[in-house]
Amino acid sequence: MDSTKSSGETAINITESKSSKGKAPATNYTVTTKATPYQQQGGWKRGISIFDFILRICALVAALAATTTMGTTDQTLPFFTQFFQFQASYDDLPAFTFFVVANAIASSYLVLSLPFSIVCIVRPHAVGAKLLLLIFDTVLVGFTTAAAAAAAAIVYLAHNGNSNTNWFAICQQFDDFCQRVSGAVVASFIAAVIFIFLVVLSAVALRRH
Amino acid sequence: MDSTKSSGETAINITESKSSKGKAPATNYTVTTKATPYQQQGGWKRGISIFDFILRICALVAALAATTTMGTTDQTLPFFTQFFQFQASYDDLPAFTFFVVANAIASSYLVLSLPFSIVCIVRPHAVGAKLLLLIFDTVLVGFTTAAAAAAAAIVYLAHNGNSNTNWFAICQQFDDFCQRVSGAVVASFIAAVIFIFLVVLSAVALRRH
Repeated sequence: MDSTKSSGETAINITESKSSKGKAPATNYTVTTKATPYQQQGGWKRGISIFDFILRICALVAALAATTTMGTTDQTLPFFTQFFQFQASYDDLPAFTFFVVANAIASSYLVLSLPFSIVCIVRPHAVGAKLLLLIFDTVLVGFTTAAAAAAAAIVYLAHNGNSNTNWFAICQQFDDFCQRVSGAVVASFIAAVIFIFLVVLSAVALRRH
Repeated sequence: MDSTKSSGETAINITESKSSKGKAPATNYTVTTKATPYQQQGGWKRGISIFDFILRICALVAALAATTTMGTTDQTLPFFTQFFQFQASYDDLPAFTFFVVANAIASSYLVLSLPFSIVCIVRPHAVGAKLLLLIFDTVLVGFTTAAAAAAAAIVYLAHNGNSNTNWFAICQQFDDFCQRVSGAVVASFIAAVIFIFLVVLSAVALRRH
């Protein structure tokens, strides 16, 4: 493949050198074909960067919603028995605490990444900023998905319980708590999906510099 | 081979600039500077592709280990009481079932991706195959992390229990089961981290085509 490509290029160069007796029209042709897509690329790369910026704001909204919903959920039951606690909060379960911390980190990262996204809009050919965003976005895909999945596993258990391990469902008592927590999990999964789209967008924008 | 090729091209360009008699020498300069790094890029891109292939095999080993460890774990206790089951298997808990399915899918994807990785080694400038691998790798980052995190949340609960929700630790009884499951979770997290490295590698290779 290398040999065919390079031989093709050499052939072009030979015809170029033959035809370039005085005017070099082939050379000008090569330059024009190279220059025009570069300017066109600037157009669609800027479009991708603007879309990237909008997606980042959507992800920020989703991550902030997940953090605040989970963090402020605190249900106190009007009665209490000796078997069930009369208060449920996110810090009762380690998975929910991790969820709040991870989504808060994701929100902070998204705020910090907005200036870099603006740099990509202003300078569509900036490779460094895009590569940096892509690497951190990929790490954040794993981070937000881990938080959402761990919380989802616990929420599932809270809803349905598990007879094999004698873990009882607690959502009959804490229905409001469970509903809010489920909403937070969904918001975090939305943020994770947006992060996947951000990685793919950055990769497409990086493809031809 | 590379050096002779590039020297041949430079010679052609020199004759070209001589024959064009001072008309647009800057254009000829652009052609020469473009030709040589293109071949150098082929070298380090092939190196990245080979590293990509090795990482894929490592991820495959980790994902297969996670699947088989979790899938074959089946502990039967020599005694039974009326409170605890006397058999523990992965399909007792939905999170563990999801873990096995997700890691099996990840293993299958990794086997299917190996030919594409070989294509990237043979043809270092193939953009389509790299972009395809990057997109699917990103999705798989989310997938394996979700499986590992959900299983980790349940394993944590099985080890420590939770007094707030009256979920008791079961690892005193099923210690062998818990140890094997923990090992499977670690293997799945290793696979997820390798997937993140694969995405970053693909992005670096895509950077300049």
